[in-house]
Amino acid sequence: MSRPFANIAVDTPVKILLTESEMPRRWYNLAADLPVPPPLGPDGKPVTPEMMAAIFPMGILEQEMSGERYIDIPEPVLEILAKWRPSPLHRAFGLERALKTPARIYFKNESVSPAGSHKPNTAVAQAYYNKIAGVKHVTTETGAGQWGSALSFACAQFGLTCRVYMVKVSYEQKPFRKVMMAAWGGECIPSPSGRTKAGRAALAKDPDCPGSLAIAISEAVEDAVSDPTGSTKYSLGSVLNHVMLHQTIIGQETELQLEKAGERMPDRVIACVGGGSNFAGLAFPFVKRKIDGEETTVIAVEPAACPTLTRGTYAYDIGDSSGMTPLLPMYTLGHEFMPAPIHAGGLRYHGMSPLVSRAVKEGLVEARAVGQLECYQAALTFARTEGIIAAPESSHAIAMAIREAKLAAEEGVERVIVFGLSGHGHLDLAGYEKYLAGGLEDSTMSEEGLADSLKCIEGFPKP
Amino acid sequence: MSRPFANIAVDTPVKILLTESEMPRRWYNLAADLPVPPPLGPDGKPVTPEMMAAIFPMGILEQEMSGERYIDIPEPVLEILAKWRPSPLHRAFGLERALKTPARIYFKNESVSPAGSHKPNTAVAQAYYNKIAGVKHVTTETGAGQWGSALSFACAQFGLTCRVYMVKVSYEQKPFRKVMMAAWGGECIPSPSGRTKAGRAALAKDPDCPGSLAIAISEAVEDAVSDPTGSTKYSLGSVLNHVMLHQTIIGQETELQLEKAGERMPDRVIACVGGGSNFAGLAFPFVKRKIDGEETTVIAVEPAACPTLTRGTYAYDIGDSSGMTPLLPMYTLGHEFMPAPIHAGGLRYHGMSPLVSRAVKEGLVEARAVGQLECYQAALTFARTEGIIAAPESSHAIAMAIREAKLAAEEGVERVIVFGLSGHGHLDLAGYEKYLAGGLEDSTMSEEGLADSLKCIEGFPKP
Repeated sequence: MSRPFANIAVDTPVKILLTESEMPRRWYNLAADLPVPPPLGPDGKPVTPEMMAAIFPMGILEQEMSGERYIDIPEPVLEILAKWRPSPLHRAFGLERALKTPARIYFKNESVSPAGSHKPNTAVAQAYYNKIAGVKHVTTETGAGQWGSALSFACAQFGLTCRVYMVKVSYEQKPFRKVMMAAWGGECIPSPSGRTKAGRAALAKDPDCPGSLAIAISEAVEDAVSDPTGSTKYSLGSVLNHVMLHQTIIGQETELQLEKAGERMPDRVIACVGGGSNFAGLAFPFVKRKIDGEETTVIAVEPAACPTLTRGTYAYDIGDSSGMTPLLPMYTLGHEFMPAPIHAGGLRYHGMSPLVSRAVKEGLVEARAVGQLECYQAALTFARTEGIIAAPESSHAIAMAIREAKLAAEEGVERVIVFGLSGHGHLDLAGYEKYLAGGLEDSTMSEEGLADSLKCIEGFPKP
Repeated sequence: MSRPFANIAVDTPVKILLTESEMPRRWYNLAADLPVPPPLGPDGKPVTPEMMAAIFPMGILEQEMSGERYIDIPEPVLEILAKWRPSPLHRAFGLERALKTPARIYFKNESVSPAGSHKPNTAVAQAYYNKIAGVKHVTTETGAGQWGSALSFACAQFGLTCRVYMVKVSYEQKPFRKVMMAAWGGECIPSPSGRTKAGRAALAKDPDCPGSLAIAISEAVEDAVSDPTGSTKYSLGSVLNHVMLHQTIIGQETELQLEKAGERMPDRVIACVGGGSNFAGLAFPFVKRKIDGEETTVIAVEPAACPTLTRGTYAYDIGDSSGMTPLLPMYTLGHEFMPAPIHAGGLRYHGMSPLVSRAVKEGLVEARAVGQLECYQAALTFARTEGIIAAPESSHAIAMAIREAKLAAEEGVERVIVFGLSGHGHLDLAGYEKYLAGGLEDSTMSEEGLADSLKCIEGFPKP
């Protein structure tokens, strides 16, 4: 199965590339095949587009509520995506050899985007819909900084300004993310900040609060709705249906690339999951085929320190910390959950995309949790065999792919494993430094901590 | 000329890609078409392969001395290069629009390699030739860290250990480079260090010495030759003929890509130049065509703070600071030259590749110097239009491409401009931070400083 120093012109190249003309022209909307309960307002009634219009432009809202299976990607969005898309699908020959596995391992490389992750796929679309709606300023939150960087880049493409509330622990762990955003003209503020009521409330509760995505979302939404001119909107990097939609270009490309590599349906589709967008992007086109009767195992990998899918509850909960967002039907750890400051900042979220949650609840997707030490070890193996230094988030998918490849070796089965490399770790090297120095440990939540964290959703309606 | 929101399926895509089977199978050796005077030993006589055998394996020495025009690339090297090669050639539609230029601007994107620059092209080849020669350990120097990262990556691919002496000022400016090297198993030591005689001599002269490539080279060579078992060799990331050779895959790909884009010989070929390898990689295939009678302007861009080609002397000089290397026929500022601590650490070198030097001397290549403020401004324009955050070294090429594109606009001429994006700046964001905060300034050398700096080569033979 390996290709030790074989001639380069063999049938399966190291990278499977697509031309720009092969780039998917439409997004796939899983909501057409897997309806989810509606988001609810504070009154317990389904949210209307009008209620959301204060924070999102109409183009985004239509997609958020859409039941259409396929939605055309606008040409201006395609043109910008073409700066790096279609992204390569790599055959991980080096990793296969190192693991002595009969599995054929492929990874979809989203690290090639300007911001270094999958996030620009939706950032460009969102900036576009804001631009054509006449919006001038966009606010958002970011965890590890991948999303804030992506949106800063996308806003620069359309002449919008961008303000990013970055979870404080990540802001400090990744000091250069704010510079990257600034290079694209974005402004980055550590959260909780003193600029918003939500931020001040979090600081009053704990002046040393490391921040969370939930608090940062509250701050960004509050900032947007506080603009009296109405020319500021909010943009979300994950969780909501339209974000999942925009990311499905990843999985659609992967399907075509696997076909070119002579593979049928992969046996394992693996991606890390925080709010759900990276996972949805790779997995949803395969989930659709599973709904249509094909067989595969789709695995969502989350950090053991933030085990939303594996230990959370399927319930209605708010998406932020203060109720600026509607109630969403999802797996949640409770919106007051404060995850340990693990380095995979993009996965430190109490909730989960309603579509991903539903797919897990229906058994279409299997969720697994992995500790960060196993992830860093896997990332080093990957760096030394495949060369790419992965983002700490992506290392969760690598760790699971390695587990599955070893299992295939034990069982002597030639499985096809596809995983998503959601981004590179060039701005996350402080985590590698700590790991290499032996200064990291695993963190898991106690049963008591979990029960306590879920108390805040007791009064909410049930889906 | 622009393509505002045009259909993606137009004739010229945003990126011109090649398949792996189109990857060049041989390196181009400019020495066949442009002989250079031989390197000389301390006795003033040409160096023999035997004299160099203490530091380089035979496969490398043969290439260093070769007069063959084309040299086959070994299959194991091709297989590793295929992890990211052929690299994309981008049409810079966004930059063209921003500059309102009739020029068609292309850039060759070497930032897609695992280490983030062109450096792995030769690192992989050098690690391979060391491996097949039975070498176990490799030492080297690095400026900004691009080369040390690349060699660490390449050594990991072949199971070699790697020790990198990194110029101290860059080591401090780019704190995460050493972590990147460590992720690939490499060891990074700030230079001057107390580990070698050369390092101790530099520290004795100035305990706060910021370091230079010349000192770091001395340290790395000394480290290699001091291994009594002979299983340690030295590896150089630029300057020498074999390094230029390995990089020519860049320009050969570019030629094929321009042809696919429907372009003939470009009017301008632009690359930044420090030791010469990035420049040679893109330019030498075009320099050959110029020798063969085709017309183009090939521009080597260097920092005004380290103006080797524009203000240096064509002379024999040593490549390091202490005479561990032979005398090379090249443009030089004198081996005791201590460049200002500009952020383009990879361009802070007193000398220049003998092949690049000869091409400049013969008028085949034009040299120009640019200050770092213009370069950072150009890099921001590039980031906001094309999306990619460039390495400070690469920003020199961007600045010159912008100058040429503006000139084309003034003159109303539809020129084709190709420049080399040698790497991304993900690990160089401290420089961007300083620039954005207004904390950087330009630095140029006085005439007196230059004359003083050249005194150290007075006794050397003349080429």
